[in-house]
Amino acid sequence: MIEINRLDTRDAGFDAALGRLLDRAPEQDGAVLAAVEKIVADVRARGDDAVLELTNRFDRRSAASIAELEIGKDRLRQGWEALPADLRAALEEAAARIRAYAEHQRIAPFEYTDAHGNRMGQMVTPLDRAGLYVPGGKAAYPSSVLMNAIPAKVAGVGEVIMVVPAPGGELNDAVLGAAHLAGVDRVFTVGGAQAVAALAYGTATIPAMDKIVGPGNAYVAAAKRIVFGQVGIDSIAGPSEIVVIGDGLTDPRWIAMDLFSQAEHGEDSEAILISPDRDYLDRVAQAMEERVKELPREKIVRSSIRDRGALIAVRDLAEAAAVSNRIAPEHLELSVAEPRELLKKIRHAGAVFLGRHAPESFGDYCAGPNHVLPTSRAARFSNPLGVYEFQKRSSLIDCTPEGAKPLARIAGRIADAEGLQAHAQSARDRG
Amino acid sequence: MIEINRLDTRDAGFDAALGRLLDRAPEQDGAVLAAVEKIVADVRARGDDAVLELTNRFDRRSAASIAELEIGKDRLRQGWEALPADLRAALEEAAARIRAYAEHQRIAPFEYTDAHGNRMGQMVTPLDRAGLYVPGGKAAYPSSVLMNAIPAKVAGVGEVIMVVPAPGGELNDAVLGAAHLAGVDRVFTVGGAQAVAALAYGTATIPAMDKIVGPGNAYVAAAKRIVFGQVGIDSIAGPSEIVVIGDGLTDPRWIAMDLFSQAEHGEDSEAILISPDRDYLDRVAQAMEERVKELPREKIVRSSIRDRGALIAVRDLAEAAAVSNRIAPEHLELSVAEPRELLKKIRHAGAVFLGRHAPESFGDYCAGPNHVLPTSRAARFSNPLGVYEFQKRSSLIDCTPEGAKPLARIAGRIADAEGLQAHAQSARDRG
Repeated sequence: MIEINRLDTRDAGFDAALGRLLDRAPEQDGAVLAAVEKIVADVRARGDDAVLELTNRFDRRSAASIAELEIGKDRLRQGWEALPADLRAALEEAAARIRAYAEHQRIAPFEYTDAHGNRMGQMVTPLDRAGLYVPGGKAAYPSSVLMNAIPAKVAGVGEVIMVVPAPGGELNDAVLGAAHLAGVDRVFTVGGAQAVAALAYGTATIPAMDKIVGPGNAYVAAAKRIVFGQVGIDSIAGPSEIVVIGDGLTDPRWIAMDLFSQAEHGEDSEAILISPDRDYLDRVAQAMEERVKELPREKIVRSSIRDRGALIAVRDLAEAAAVSNRIAPEHLELSVAEPRELLKKIRHAGAVFLGRHAPESFGDYCAGPNHVLPTSRAARFSNPLGVYEFQKRSSLIDCTPEGAKPLARIAGRIADAEGLQAHAQSARDRG
Repeated sequence: MIEINRLDTRDAGFDAALGRLLDRAPEQDGAVLAAVEKIVADVRARGDDAVLELTNRFDRRSAASIAELEIGKDRLRQGWEALPADLRAALEEAAARIRAYAEHQRIAPFEYTDAHGNRMGQMVTPLDRAGLYVPGGKAAYPSSVLMNAIPAKVAGVGEVIMVVPAPGGELNDAVLGAAHLAGVDRVFTVGGAQAVAALAYGTATIPAMDKIVGPGNAYVAAAKRIVFGQVGIDSIAGPSEIVVIGDGLTDPRWIAMDLFSQAEHGEDSEAILISPDRDYLDRVAQAMEERVKELPREKIVRSSIRDRGALIAVRDLAEAAAVSNRIAPEHLELSVAEPRELLKKIRHAGAVFLGRHAPESFGDYCAGPNHVLPTSRAARFSNPLGVYEFQKRSSLIDCTPEGAKPLARIAGRIADAEGLQAHAQSARDRG
């Protein structure tokens, strides 16, 4: 049978064992951070020149100017047209579904009148400019382009600019085609910390963004942390995670493959099945051993499952939900007969897949909800990427001459208590 | 007349001059960062012991245990009861208005059925635990307690924990009373980076939070940046800012005091008046000279206004809006005859005060909208603090056996293109 961690909530050491399994928070890598700080400072100081040098060096390019690193809209369209017709159709259907979901996410403005006739409200406006970081090379995913760009477009962002490294000059038609489909405005083949720095501070050629979103490696993550505040960022993405809660009645072969769909992302991905049915855990382990052989990435999957995978036996589904809440997983499948009942007990999860017929990969590609989700327990406090990440709110305070009077009294009194006399006087001027 | 910067959009050097005025981004202070990294690591490693030692040292305390640093609910109530009746009434009215506004901000869940009978949705849940950082000592503001705690409570956060330093053991009844009024669950008199670290990682005594909000000094800001990701944080607060756009018909004495209400916060606060009426700019400068003498903080205000204040002459109100959008101010007063018309041109501002009778100080205390607002141009991409910061969304994907089939086809095709075979197979298992 496949090598995988086995845990049981009835074991005395369960809490500690789960803690060890989940404790993946990589120590901040000092060398990475130092290198990235230097790159960010360099791009900030020298702009285009620094971006060009670093790109030529790290991506083995020989561009003579940043302009050469920009991919025109014609090239995006060519990428699109180069794709097989059935792939284009699939991407179009996925894009339509992602857009339909995103349309529900717009932040609603509001306004109301208080007892004194003053109007209080909230105005909602889109960002002027958003930058999308898209990984290049082997991990070049058109789905990431759709998931990042479409919500920005639905929000009404003025200009959406994509950066994607092209190691050795290699471009991926599916990624360019997805940018075409999603309506990305400009694309630069720049990657790494230098791309993040360019988008944050702007250069002569690359405009400064208001927000930078999208996944990336340790260098990209470190750069996003450094520029945070100067621009908005979405989140610091960690390794991907799936938790499946199973009642034991879903085909074990399906669950095996659902777990693999996470494990195949890389050796630090986390795939966990929780069930009150111990026999079922064994049957899934058996199915995993059988099906892992179907996969070209068998080696990565075995390694990931051995180090980060787990089968967790629990007393009942309520306890399964409690364990899942502790993990606060990016993806959670409720592969049970009554998923809506179990959902009531779920407090933290990026996306929840209800029932036996909703595997995580639907969410990764085409169900509609975003596949950029909080990782590393961030589902305790943060959101899937969505339209709301590309909009912002402004408070509105609109007072009448009469309505201002009671507010002048309240504000004046509290400002007195805080020793802020100009605040108090400014309020009382309207009293 | 008062010393203040004078700019004019018709001057050739205007853009550069405005750039210099706004360029306040402090270089990251290496010494502060190094000190804070050490404190955070110490608290993470030694928990309560480190928090106790650091608090005794930095805040001149002599507590024997962390338990001694906790303020019980009785003490909060005593703080409340010690306040003058008219201050209690003012705080109660402010709290009611803050709550009424917050009630409008809850994130709406949604769910819909697609053409194949699948259900897609968004679930909304509150955070389990939120930590509020409240500055202590001289800058002890009950209004900050209300503004941070009430949205958390309206969101339904399970436990709201406040930290506030008590230098030399000194407690502020207004701050404790506000915590009582807002229903804060627990209070620890711990401050600085050690408080942020304790809330982020938890100690034996202080529980780990899911999110930390509230303003603080450079050490607190650096600590929030370090723990970001481990927990959610609201934002990195910079110096406060106000922009007033005036048409020249509001009493210059009022505008002078509105600008001072920002300037009195400190020498790096920014107060800017923009008007197409040059005479009016002079009259406001004259009024500033007269009224600054009313203020106990005259010296700070003069210094702030001299270094960071500005009177900007523009061609018309549309240009005033454009300059304001470039500044993306925390607070924006539209002190004009038709503020709703001008509002249509405003793209970036934390809070907008409409008309002559809505001074910023109403928003600071009692209008209802939050006074925790994006600073340092962050209004380009971020939000006022609100209920939505204490809630999070989970995507819901619920498929029927029949509805799964078209999704299996789309997901399978895109997964093939991305070379992710387990994703493809997991999807097709439901096809």
